[in-house]
Amino acid sequence: MQIAGLKYRTVWWQDDAINIIDQTSLPFSFEILQLTTIEQVAQAIVQMQVRGAPAIGATGGFGLALAARLAPAKNFTKFIKKSKKTLLATRPTAFDLSYALDIVEQAILQCPADPAAAALQSAQAFADSNVQACRQIGRLGAELIQPNFRILTHCNAGALATVDFGTALAPIRFSKHKNIFVYVDETRPRLQGSRLTAYELEQEGIPHAIIADNAAGYFMQTGQIDMVITGADRVALNGDAANKIGTYEKAVVAKENNIPFYIAAPLSTIDFNCASGKKIPIEQRAEEEVSYIEDKLIANPNSPIQNPAFDVTPARYITGIITEKGIFTPEQIERLQK
Amino acid sequence: MQIAGLKYRTVWWQDDAINIIDQTSLPFSFEILQLTTIEQVAQAIVQMQVRGAPAIGATGGFGLALAARLAPAKNFTKFIKKSKKTLLATRPTAFDLSYALDIVEQAILQCPADPAAAALQSAQAFADSNVQACRQIGRLGAELIQPNFRILTHCNAGALATVDFGTALAPIRFSKHKNIFVYVDETRPRLQGSRLTAYELEQEGIPHAIIADNAAGYFMQTGQIDMVITGADRVALNGDAANKIGTYEKAVVAKENNIPFYIAAPLSTIDFNCASGKKIPIEQRAEEEVSYIEDKLIANPNSPIQNPAFDVTPARYITGIITEKGIFTPEQIERLQK
Repeated sequence: MQIAGLKYRTVWWQDDAINIIDQTSLPFSFEILQLTTIEQVAQAIVQMQVRGAPAIGATGGFGLALAARLAPAKNFTKFIKKSKKTLLATRPTAFDLSYALDIVEQAILQCPADPAAAALQSAQAFADSNVQACRQIGRLGAELIQPNFRILTHCNAGALATVDFGTALAPIRFSKHKNIFVYVDETRPRLQGSRLTAYELEQEGIPHAIIADNAAGYFMQTGQIDMVITGADRVALNGDAANKIGTYEKAVVAKENNIPFYIAAPLSTIDFNCASGKKIPIEQRAEEEVSYIEDKLIANPNSPIQNPAFDVTPARYITGIITEKGIFTPEQIERLQK
Repeated sequence: MQIAGLKYRTVWWQDDAINIIDQTSLPFSFEILQLTTIEQVAQAIVQMQVRGAPAIGATGGFGLALAARLAPAKNFTKFIKKSKKTLLATRPTAFDLSYALDIVEQAILQCPADPAAAALQSAQAFADSNVQACRQIGRLGAELIQPNFRILTHCNAGALATVDFGTALAPIRFSKHKNIFVYVDETRPRLQGSRLTAYELEQEGIPHAIIADNAAGYFMQTGQIDMVITGADRVALNGDAANKIGTYEKAVVAKENNIPFYIAAPLSTIDFNCASGKKIPIEQRAEEEVSYIEDKLIANPNSPIQNPAFDVTPARYITGIITEKGIFTPEQIERLQK
């Protein structure tokens, strides 16, 4: 992606460290973090300095490659296993993390002569393949976007949620010459829409407006939205898709208003071992995400809070799933199984 | 309502002034404001120091009574007309304001001998009738609430949105012995749920949890909500109801999950001259409500924002409308016309 005219990925390997753009500082300041221990990698994911299913996957993959470099020869296998467990435990819903960790672990197992090199190559290949997948999602998905379309998106499924280009934002990037307009749900509680998606769209020069999550229905109902595109954190075999909390509501209201609702996700987000959305674990996050903005209390101090971070959109509300292999109906997803 | 064990109304006449609880200070501090000029009254409504359709109505009524006291004998009629216009222009969506202003204006016109006294009596009668209506809404609506019900509400339709008791919160108050639980949408952008409704429920000792607006669908979908009750800012003749932005989404998702969705509103909120929700004016409010929390910028600085404050829930999503005269289906509303 372009930031102030320079090209960046969201996560990359450089100087023997994992480099990430700190997404908790954006849009107010642009900072790059270097992660050199497994604990730092895990914390960066937990604290959402890096977030978005594919970006978490790439970071986890590089994390296990880091583990292969740091592992003592004596307890090599144990250290790798423990590191994988630590990384996997950071966030339960996004599937790409598990996917990338399995790939890198396999590379380590298959190359006892130089597991560190094999792991890094594998992690790099995962990151590169995500860039290619997102570019392809952009090209394919752009065919759905007609001139003058007004598109609603939820959360951030942009370059920052992936390694580059984004999932939901990729078709939008590839359609910037079509006089499109993007409505951006601010996406409480963490405001990834108003902070990250709006920032990316500004950097790309794509006309947009931030709206409160509550307003999405108003814009759909009053004929101001032509399509909805979001990312996904995990797609089940039956086409159900877990994504940022609130996605389900948008999908239901889109269907009610005959507005096409698309999920954009690489194959690494599809969990072929998960029969339906009912089996997807939903992360419950801290109360403070809702009651505080940074250190400022914004809610009644003595009220409990419940904060599920994701919800599941059943396949029947999904018009299509845009992948690097094509655009499929939810029912077609199981055919992609190898 | 009880606040720290003392009884209050949201708005009342005392010491030749309109007294209101400052709702922009809650829940962090409890402050009473005294309004003694028409400009102060208008500003208190515009800045939402007093908000909620019936509370705005009562404040507007007292405001016109204040005008009748302040009006110079020479330009009496002109002053009243101008004051009414100023008060009416504060917020366009809530119908109670127009309703109360018309009543108090009629009282002034019908009593040239002592218009100030007539106006105050009329404004007081409107406020008192709202208290009675809300109490009755509470009694009638409570019949819908079964033991152990988990109820979702949106925005604040509590005592603070009325003169006392509330609309949507009145049946909940009258059901506090039934082991109920209330899910409170935080209600972006102004957080009336997490700030005001949560505060009222805490004061009443009613178990509740604040959730992000985005999470309401998750709780409905996962079988954790038995009914939804919200207030209304204006009900049209055909049963369509305007209410806080986001209400429409909740109603659609409730219907999709076979969860009853009720509007609670006094007759003063019903605009019998408004044929359908399509005719209800929707207030567009300042961008800063979304991009700032007090003086803290929380969104991408260069992104435009669109901020409609209300949406319209079509009658087909509304199970019933709880009024002081009974619980009606939307289709029955026109029968209430005098």
